[in-house]
Amino acid sequence: MKVAFIGLGTMGYPMAGHVCRAGIPLSVFNRSAEKAEKWSAEFGVNASKSIAGSVKEANVVVVCLGADQDVRSVLSMQEGVFQSMPAGGIVIDHSTTSAELAREMENCAREYGHRFIDAPVSGGQAGAEKGCLTVMAGGCAEAFAAVEPVLAAYATRYQRLGPVGSGQLAKMVNQICIAGLLQGLAEGLHFGEQAGLDMHAVVDVISGGAAQSWQMDNRAKTMLNNEFDFGFAVDWMRKDLGYVLDEARKRQISLPVTALVDQFYTQVQNLGGGRGDTSSLLLALKNSTADGWRGEKDNE
Amino acid sequence: MKVAFIGLGTMGYPMAGHVCRAGIPLSVFNRSAEKAEKWSAEFGVNASKSIAGSVKEANVVVVCLGADQDVRSVLSMQEGVFQSMPAGGIVIDHSTTSAELAREMENCAREYGHRFIDAPVSGGQAGAEKGCLTVMAGGCAEAFAAVEPVLAAYATRYQRLGPVGSGQLAKMVNQICIAGLLQGLAEGLHFGEQAGLDMHAVVDVISGGAAQSWQMDNRAKTMLNNEFDFGFAVDWMRKDLGYVLDEARKRQISLPVTALVDQFYTQVQNLGGGRGDTSSLLLALKNSTADGWRGEKDNE
Repeated sequence: MKVAFIGLGTMGYPMAGHVCRAGIPLSVFNRSAEKAEKWSAEFGVNASKSIAGSVKEANVVVVCLGADQDVRSVLSMQEGVFQSMPAGGIVIDHSTTSAELAREMENCAREYGHRFIDAPVSGGQAGAEKGCLTVMAGGCAEAFAAVEPVLAAYATRYQRLGPVGSGQLAKMVNQICIAGLLQGLAEGLHFGEQAGLDMHAVVDVISGGAAQSWQMDNRAKTMLNNEFDFGFAVDWMRKDLGYVLDEARKRQISLPVTALVDQFYTQVQNLGGGRGDTSSLLLALKNSTADGWRGEKDNE
Repeated sequence: MKVAFIGLGTMGYPMAGHVCRAGIPLSVFNRSAEKAEKWSAEFGVNASKSIAGSVKEANVVVVCLGADQDVRSVLSMQEGVFQSMPAGGIVIDHSTTSAELAREMENCAREYGHRFIDAPVSGGQAGAEKGCLTVMAGGCAEAFAAVEPVLAAYATRYQRLGPVGSGQLAKMVNQICIAGLLQGLAEGLHFGEQAGLDMHAVVDVISGGAAQSWQMDNRAKTMLNNEFDFGFAVDWMRKDLGYVLDEARKRQISLPVTALVDQFYTQVQNLGGGRGDTSSLLLALKNSTADGWRGEKDNE
């Protein structure tokens, strides 16, 4: 197996590193040369100067990019991945995109004799660095089995959930659950703070019961300490919720709280918090208080 | 210490049993004599015929009732608990009520020379039966310390969180967190089912990550299997959310999703699901589909 890894961003950088450490023959490409050179210096593998150059001998190409248009451009453009890799390859896309884009990429891959797997991840930057990501995949069983050794380099859970698109749909389920959960947590903490409770003590008590969540275990304290400058950014969450709400609209699925939380994230962005962690939903609530409003007026 | 336990309902019945098993001298009273006799037969302690009779020698009275008016009536009425127990006693209220009722009961207790502790619980029927409830308490530190041996009989976590009312406010935080969390979970499962995913597989994958919650671990499968005839009833949740929303209104606190979820619970009640588990929020979503609507029309 020879792997090409494209996209050395926050997630891709450490993921490609794990593939390298696993001893799998690897080439890499990143749009910004600076990041690619840094990666090359750290892992001792020369970065390619072009997408075509990076994939020309690869039978598995892993991409870790941003939104639909980035994936479409890297995979299906002239001298892009599909055109440049040897026929019969497998492309794994770890970006979070629409399910429609995944099906479009599958069709495009097929024209060149390749197979496509949509494989969005969860676990964030920490999961990527520790090599313990979760991969939700869609694609044919045979192609998935063939790439498991690559996934195992950076993921501890990876599962095929159905045909192409299933990975993206499963990731949407994940983001829907998180959106409502985080808003509930934010409202709970906001209420308790406004009511004058010692919220660190309250969280300690209630986190042992039916209100427990990964978010409560890992974010309640940072939220109470007003720390939001880390984690999965609101801007990315809004991108993901955009795909969710488009898909739900097409399928005529009612997601009232998800749609509302998307609106609250817009407020957080408008308050300047787009780069902050998804838990900054608390900021929109705080801004809804009389103090929040007076604070704004004082600044005028 | 001599304890009187009033209210042998779903929660109180096993809780009083644990006090009895702990070897603490105990008298009990229940409004419905049938339930009291059943308890007496099981635990070998005669049930009293009246509230006054049950508390006349008790220095600690534990009540486990329903809503504000039930607690007010049992504690502060003529020949009720405050009037009938020896002066200098401590009353623990495990009911979930308004924080205002807790402060009213504290004032009333003081007039008779008693102390009052508001102490709502979480952990449900299973927690009560296993003796592993969580108690969120408000009251003076000295009174709380004095009753810890009683709480230890049926709770594994019990903490004083501040003055009287703090227990109820903390329970409200708990219910707010659960409301948003359950709606997020319901929307996630609903979306995945409508999108044709194998949701058991999806839940297995995503429950290892940032979407994890006690509710996902314990309710996702029952929700997917359409099982709602168990657990904490929607009717009780609406009672609790009523106290939450009243308190938020008084304090001018914005809880947009909690208020919305309360509306969805109303829909579930109107669909005939008031006795079902709180996870039946999924039913309101299912009813919002074209099939749900056509289903209703077919029944006309």
